Amino acid sequence: MSRNLRGNLIVCQSGGPTVVINSSLAGVIDEALRHDEIKGVYGALNGILGLLNLSIIDLKREDPSIITGLRSTPSAALGSSRYKLKEEDLEKILDIFEGYNIRYFLINGGNDSMDAANRILRFAKEMKFDLRVIGIPKTVDNDLLYTDHCPGYGSIGRWLAIATMDAGRDTEGIYTSDPIKIVETMGRDTGWVSATTSLAKQREEDAPHLIYFPEVTFNLQKFLEDVQLIYKTLGYVVVVVSEGIRGEDGGPIVESKRPIDTDSFGHRQPGGVSHFLAGAVSEQLGIKARYDKPGTIQRSSIVCASTTDLQEAYLVGKMAVRYSIEGKSGFMVTLERINSPQYQVKTGLVELEKVANKVREFPGEFISKDHNFVTPDFVKYLTPLVGGELPRYVRLKKYPIIRPNSNKR
Amino acid sequence: MSRNLRGNLIVCQSGGPTVVINSSLAGVIDEALRHDEIKGVYGALNGILGLLNLSIIDLKREDPSIITGLRSTPSAALGSSRYKLKEEDLEKILDIFEGYNIRYFLINGGNDSMDAANRILRFAKEMKFDLRVIGIPKTVDNDLLYTDHCPGYGSIGRWLAIATMDAGRDTEGIYTSDPIKIVETMGRDTGWVSATTSLAKQREEDAPHLIYFPEVTFNLQKFLEDVQLIYKTLGYVVVVVSEGIRGEDGGPIVESKRPIDTDSFGHRQPGGVSHFLAGAVSEQLGIKARYDKPGTIQRSSIVCASTTDLQEAYLVGKMAVRYSIEGKSGFMVTLERINSPQYQVKTGLVELEKVANKVREFPGEFISKDHNFVTPDFVKYLTPLVGGELPRYVRLKKYPIIRPNSNKR
Repeated sequence: MSRNLRGNLIVCQSGGPTVVINSSLAGVIDEALRHDEIKGVYGALNGILGLLNLSIIDLKREDPSIITGLRSTPSAALGSSRYKLKEEDLEKILDIFEGYNIRYFLINGGNDSMDAANRILRFAKEMKFDLRVIGIPKTVDNDLLYTDHCPGYGSIGRWLAIATMDAGRDTEGIYTSDPIKIVETMGRDTGWVSATTSLAKQREEDAPHLIYFPEVTFNLQKFLEDVQLIYKTLGYVVVVVSEGIRGEDGGPIVESKRPIDTDSFGHRQPGGVSHFLAGAVSEQLGIKARYDKPGTIQRSSIVCASTTDLQEAYLVGKMAVRYSIEGKSGFMVTLERINSPQYQVKTGLVELEKVANKVREFPGEFISKDHNFVTPDFVKYLTPLVGGELPRYVRLKKYPIIRPNSNKR
Repeated sequence: MSRNLRGNLIVCQSGGPTVVINSSLAGVIDEALRHDEIKGVYGALNGILGLLNLSIIDLKREDPSIITGLRSTPSAALGSSRYKLKEEDLEKILDIFEGYNIRYFLINGGNDSMDAANRILRFAKEMKFDLRVIGIPKTVDNDLLYTDHCPGYGSIGRWLAIATMDAGRDTEGIYTSDPIKIVETMGRDTGWVSATTSLAKQREEDAPHLIYFPEVTFNLQKFLEDVQLIYKTLGYVVVVVSEGIRGEDGGPIVESKRPIDTDSFGHRQPGGVSHFLAGAVSEQLGIKARYDKPGTIQRSSIVCASTTDLQEAYLVGKMAVRYSIEGKSGFMVTLERINSPQYQVKTGLVELEKVANKVREFPGEFISKDHNFVTPDFVKYLTPLVGGELPRYVRLKKYPIIRPNSNKR
């Protein structure tokens, strides 16, 4: 493969949006403009779909202020999709690449997207079409293998940690009437996302009091006992559940049976776990329970973005271009944590086929012995990713007044 | 009533927490410390309950840094409650006031709390106990009469406007697989809260596309038609529904039948409106719908607090003390908008009995002709309350690339 491959570059965004994928896009564009080998810098609208539909735009013509503004704009500026690549698409895509003289293909996505990238590259090789393909990691789920963490994760972590601090204060404030709060987080397959709420806990009695992960079989009776126990001690409970917690049969504890709720990869949408559990607590324990299901707000709120995450997302975008210019192809950019007193990362590469369609579960060593919280090691892992300290709230010392006069009127 | 009434002051927080009630508390404490008439500055823990249980604390002994910190700490630092005052409590409370020599009673709450304050004052007058009672308005619901708006409202408005901007970007980004988003807001009785999401709309096609209020009878068929229409035009829809929307019979369209879900005032808790409506859209229109129910996170997130709201909450706290020192009693502090080019407010007073137990509905003139959005007048009313500009996001211009070479490979 020649080092000096000349042609156009195309980038696309794929899968669920985050608050930092537009930073990766800005990184790609800024870096691509610095290399003469790259003539046109194109974007495909709505991921692979935009390629297939020829919805292709010229990113060089965008005003520089817009490219800078991408770094403070959440969601997918190019549009994203969850399209599952069909065999017959491969030839069409290659035809388009040839027609548009596209020699650099960058896809910003999760494990499904890495599979698509890998298949496109394999087909190009079969067809002897000189193409460089680099995957840019993106997922709030943090479930890609061979990278210390995924861009998007630190920001959802910061958002959820703050939201859980706030839910803790709120529930503590009104525990006399609304003592149980169930917060449902994203995380269809893994507990990485729900685990981030643990950062809210600064003192033993702080929220969250319980966290449930898809990696641990969920038992309703055990859950109710856990809730009851904390309630008896503290008078209120903040519980975090992943939307993807699974029952004895390995399936979701509540799931939609509607065919419409199955995506093109066959993933079924969980069906309102917190709604169900709040009902179970109210009915079976007789304690009033309310639930918060922030849904996609947790992944799309840039107000609480992690600065570390924003910078790293930009970095992996830049590096994807740089690696491809150096002749690398068939890899996903990774983040490697440098073993140093202060948190530092460098980028690396992993073969696309090693990450394609694979899920990195939330590791057992990060789950507490009781299976309902995280370990201190996880907190150490997560802390630098959320980009600086969390807000500090005060607490009154509450010096009691002794009744000065106990005479009856 | 003597102008120079000497004695102790007690303050309590009541009803659902907000991000600014601790600012009102700081205002009360700071002002109380400036007046020699006020000897002790006490707080009752968990509202009226703390009075009845003698859970009374000495706020003068708190470190000044904690009082300052209250202004950036959400929820109820004193603890709140939804306790419904009983007739037999009145004598007990007066007995405690006498025992503790409490001559100033301030309650920070909504219309239920103003009723409690009014009843306590009436009883004190009957018993010829010299007591000054002032209510400090607080409610994200913005449903108190005789005040331009309520502290707490601007902040929930800012939070929801930003969350809706983000939900709009997120849904637009992934419309090819998740085109319908239903956002459920608080607002058990009125549409004030759901209406705030309208600020997110800067262009005609921006989210939110539809807003539903408790003040307008909800018709499922009409709702589905509204959603379908926007979907056909834009390809995606962001719908906002108040948790309290009501059906033909005047009752909630979905509500919990559990006795545990009825509070001590007899208010029943709505039962998952967005969960229900997302199901209806998926099943009856065959379009995949997801929902976000941020729950109490919307009222407890100080990250997005309105600076205007924070300042006004502090102001009404201060003024409650000042009015009571001037001899006023039996009033709630109000915010009056000054008719001037730039937004300005001053405080005023309204008799407690005029606001007690009354609900200020979202006015018909703020609801659009189609009953599914707000009018420009409402946007004008709301804009200054959310404390400055909303974040600015960019949008790519999307210059299309014309295929340079249409030959087949």
